[in-house]
Amino acid sequence: MFRIDMNSDLGESFGAWKMGQDDKVLPLLTSANIACGFHAGDPNVMRKTVRLALDSGAVLGAHPGMPDLVGFGRRKLDISPDDAYSIIVYQVGALAAFATAAGSHLQHVKPHGSLYNMAAKDAKLAEAIAQAIYDVDKSLILFALAGSESIKAANKIGLRCASEVFADRSYQEDGSLTPRSKPGAMITDENSSIKQVLSMIMEHKVTTLSGKVIPVKADTLCIHGDGEKALLFAQKIKNALLENDVEISAAGTFIK
Amino acid sequence: MFRIDMNSDLGESFGAWKMGQDDKVLPLLTSANIACGFHAGDPNVMRKTVRLALDSGAVLGAHPGMPDLVGFGRRKLDISPDDAYSIIVYQVGALAAFATAAGSHLQHVKPHGSLYNMAAKDAKLAEAIAQAIYDVDKSLILFALAGSESIKAANKIGLRCASEVFADRSYQEDGSLTPRSKPGAMITDENSSIKQVLSMIMEHKVTTLSGKVIPVKADTLCIHGDGEKALLFAQKIKNALLENDVEISAAGTFIK
Amino acid sequence: MFRIDMNSDLGESFGAWKMGQDDKVLPLLTSANIACGFHAGDPNVMRKTVRLALDSGAVLGAHPGMPDLVGFGRRKLDISPDDAYSIIVYQVGALAAFATAAGSHLQHVKPHGSLYNMAAKDAKLAEAIAQAIYDVDKSLILFALAGSESIKAANKIGLRCASEVFADRSYQEDGSLTPRSKPGAMITDENSSIKQVLSMIMEHKVTTLSGKVIPVKADTLCIHGDGEKALLFAQKIKNALLENDVEISAAGTFIK
Amino acid sequence: MFRIDMNSDLGESFGAWKMGQDDKVLPLLTSANIACGFHAGDPNVMRKTVRLALDSGAVLGAHPGMPDLVGFGRRKLDISPDDAYSIIVYQVGALAAFATAAGSHLQHVKPHGSLYNMAAKDAKLAEAIAQAIYDVDKSLILFALAGSESIKAANKIGLRCASEVFADRSYQEDGSLTPRSKPGAMITDENSSIKQVLSMIMEHKVTTLSGKVIPVKADTLCIHGDGEKALLFAQKIKNALLENDVEISAAGTFIK
Repeated sequence: MFRIDMNSDLGESFGAWKMGQDDKVLPLLTSANIACGFHAGDPNVMRKTVRLALDSGAVLGAHPGMPDLVGFGRRKLDISPDDAYSIIVYQVGALAAFATAAGSHLQHVKPHGSLYNMAAKDAKLAEAIAQAIYDVDKSLILFALAGSESIKAANKIGLRCASEVFADRSYQEDGSLTPRSKPGAMITDENSSIKQVLSMIMEHKVTTLSGKVIPVKADTLCIHGDGEKALLFAQKIKNALLENDVEISAAGTFIK
Repeated sequence: MFRIDMNSDLGESFGAWKMGQDDKVLPLLTSANIACGFHAGDPNVMRKTVRLALDSGAVLGAHPGMPDLVGFGRRKLDISPDDAYSIIVYQVGALAAFATAAGSHLQHVKPHGSLYNMAAKDAKLAEAIAQAIYDVDKSLILFALAGSESIKAANKIGLRCASEVFADRSYQEDGSLTPRSKPGAMITDENSSIKQVLSMIMEHKVTTLSGKVIPVKADTLCIHGDGEKALLFAQKIKNALLENDVEISAAGTFIK
Repeated sequence: MFRIDMNSDLGESFGAWKMGQDDKVLPLLTSANIACGFHAGDPNVMRKTVRLALDSGAVLGAHPGMPDLVGFGRRKLDISPDDAYSIIVYQVGALAAFATAAGSHLQHVKPHGSLYNMAAKDAKLAEAIAQAIYDVDKSLILFALAGSESIKAANKIGLRCASEVFADRSYQEDGSLTPRSKPGAMITDENSSIKQVLSMIMEHKVTTLSGKVIPVKADTLCIHGDGEKALLFAQKIKNALLENDVEISAAGTFIK
Repeated sequence: MFRIDMNSDLGESFGAWKMGQDDKVLPLLTSANIACGFHAGDPNVMRKTVRLALDSGAVLGAHPGMPDLVGFGRRKLDISPDDAYSIIVYQVGALAAFATAAGSHLQHVKPHGSLYNMAAKDAKLAEAIAQAIYDVDKSLILFALAGSESIKAANKIGLRCASEVFADRSYQEDGSLTPRSKPGAMITDENSSIKQVLSMIMEHKVTTLSGKVIPVKADTLCIHGDGEKALLFAQKIKNALLENDVEISAAGTFIK
């Protein structure tokens, strides 16, 4: 019996600017990562996205990012572990309040963009982030790259965590994602993508870009909802999972 | 037997910029209003200020402001009640998370600057703010101008509130503060200030600028810590209160 | 012989967020109002929009706004005349530098949103804005609501100005636009819109919402490019102007 | 006959927050580097600082920084060369407009904090910055670390530049500054500092931390005005220069 959580980044509109199709991707996922105002999202958007997610039956998570609105939190910013701790507490707290105001609560925290990527490789940053989440609410689950420093940091302090895998990214032999700047980083063939997803979930293995087979833990799968093509592909993945009797349920129901 | 809470605005530094003397004013007060990042404060400052306040024995409160850093939240911004609701939930949640991370919790919320002043006169804004606080945590206490729309809005929905009075501002016949732009707005004579404070607390009355005596409710007194003179004056007020057997304690201990 | 300038607001994307269809509206207009980073736009967007406008043959203008990104510069913010002066100098200078770097220069300045609307009615604000533009470059032309305080302020100091009219908004008897909150504010019938435009340009008259005919000066017409419908309508207006032998040319060619 | 420019960073207040003692350091320097609103400064502060600098006889320069207000532009941010180009054009243009409005003009541009430090070592970033300055105004002078990639980039395109040296920082054998994180980075002995300054200016040599003597070009000396001690030290340096018949004059008077 296999199971997987499906998560996606939502609430990334800002003020008068719209982004994404939250209403269309929500029916496909179990866990909603909602932007918290630093890289995207604003208080009104957060309020509405929490409502939208709850109405669709998705479970709520915070999606905190770097304080870099114009760069959408994608650019590396050389923050200290103390900075990381503080911006996580701040953003998780802000979103948690919208969840509470809507009669619900947060299940998880998935850092965004360069915060996610930097923490995956930087133990100090990873530890600060894990500690911040733990200190705000020790029942929260950290969503982080499978095999990363972030997962290690969570395990170290007893914070629950979900290992995240990607359908459209190729893997390196050390378990990291192939950097986008390198050839072969993106998996553009849909069948290869689906095959990779099924292998990661049902065999706990992934074939790296170099052809080597390495072990991987897959608790939650990242899906995208930006554009019709992405939505259709996400639906295909979901169908393939269901056809293979993989149970799709929110991380909180099975992560210990 | 009379009692009063003493509050002050803290944590108004930002990044490399320092403001105030939080460590010096803290011993004088019972309730700390901590800026939440919109008009002042940043995540690191909030974390440190929460720690500082707890170490001094003060009780924690959120001090949310307008999204106007360069204007320090003092300029009127024509926000909608929905905007107000969302920015209150956001900021209160962010500070509450730092309180939780430090092993504590929030007692109160005091809006800052133009948000405080606009809500005092605008029932719709006041109601949105009161509802936001209530929805985040119904045990919180709203600190608001005595006799204002904010107090009415809190009473309407059963949110606890503390009527705030000022030592250095004169009052109009309708119970509002004399606008700073008008002559006589500030009370510069220390003895007159102290007399006004004692009258408000012990007789529930204040003599307006025009000479009329009107009733006033005084649950919490606002003090300032910006500069040596302000600190000395705050100390004088505190001494006068103690000499008159006024008990100084945090609002949460006596507000129902 | 009649002539009119056609202007539109451009460069209102921000970071990862796209807004408008600048490439499609540009062929319809003579004057491009480019956002300057306060209410919309960012340095990269400004650079690209200047390039795009020059490539289409449009003349460049700055479109400075309130420092309120999340509110898109639409909310009234109670700034002082000094604040207004400084934010105009800052934004006009920033855009002028992109124009210079692209081998061109600015023709005009059109304040955005609440800055435009507040200045239309507030003589002090209008004077500060006009003075700021004049001090940066006395050859610039202020685009402002026909009959407004902004036009008066420009005339007072000898700053060139273009009276702006609107196709889709009804007018009040005092020459102001009917507030959007009131019924009849928007003219939704395309034929009525076109009739109003032709009357304003060729007869210097407009029929107010109440039915009264009042004089109006029309140097530049505001058009919108947000959405297919808006683009089609703008094209229809342009066709009607050309059919009536109205010359369409940039304000700088005829404003004295 | 020797000469040197003396520069300092000014206008780093922001909104209600004050920083530095611009009025006190201005009499000591010839070139004022004025913050442009990204890492510090705001439009009102820029306007006032330009006025203050002109009144003291200092020559104006732009001091553009990273878009990181809360980090004061000190944190490395992984911007692209395009980003760098755009934020330089934007900020230089904004300050140039204040100079023009005050009846003056800019002499130079000195990037701030991590932008300065990153460009010193990254040729692509350095080239983008040099090109941006050149494109806005080819008469401007780039102030950059002696021997850095920034100086090379300026030379490559024919942009005038001034090699900057530091009194209180030790040098490495490759001509770079010893990183602050390493022992010996700061020169705390005032006599050693003054000796280093005189050697750099009069002998075009500096003794590195390791004891090796290397050549250095010194066109402008960076001084600090934050605090009484820094001011006194700056005065001592200036006195030592004058006693040694070093002419102190703005870079624009001697940089070709």
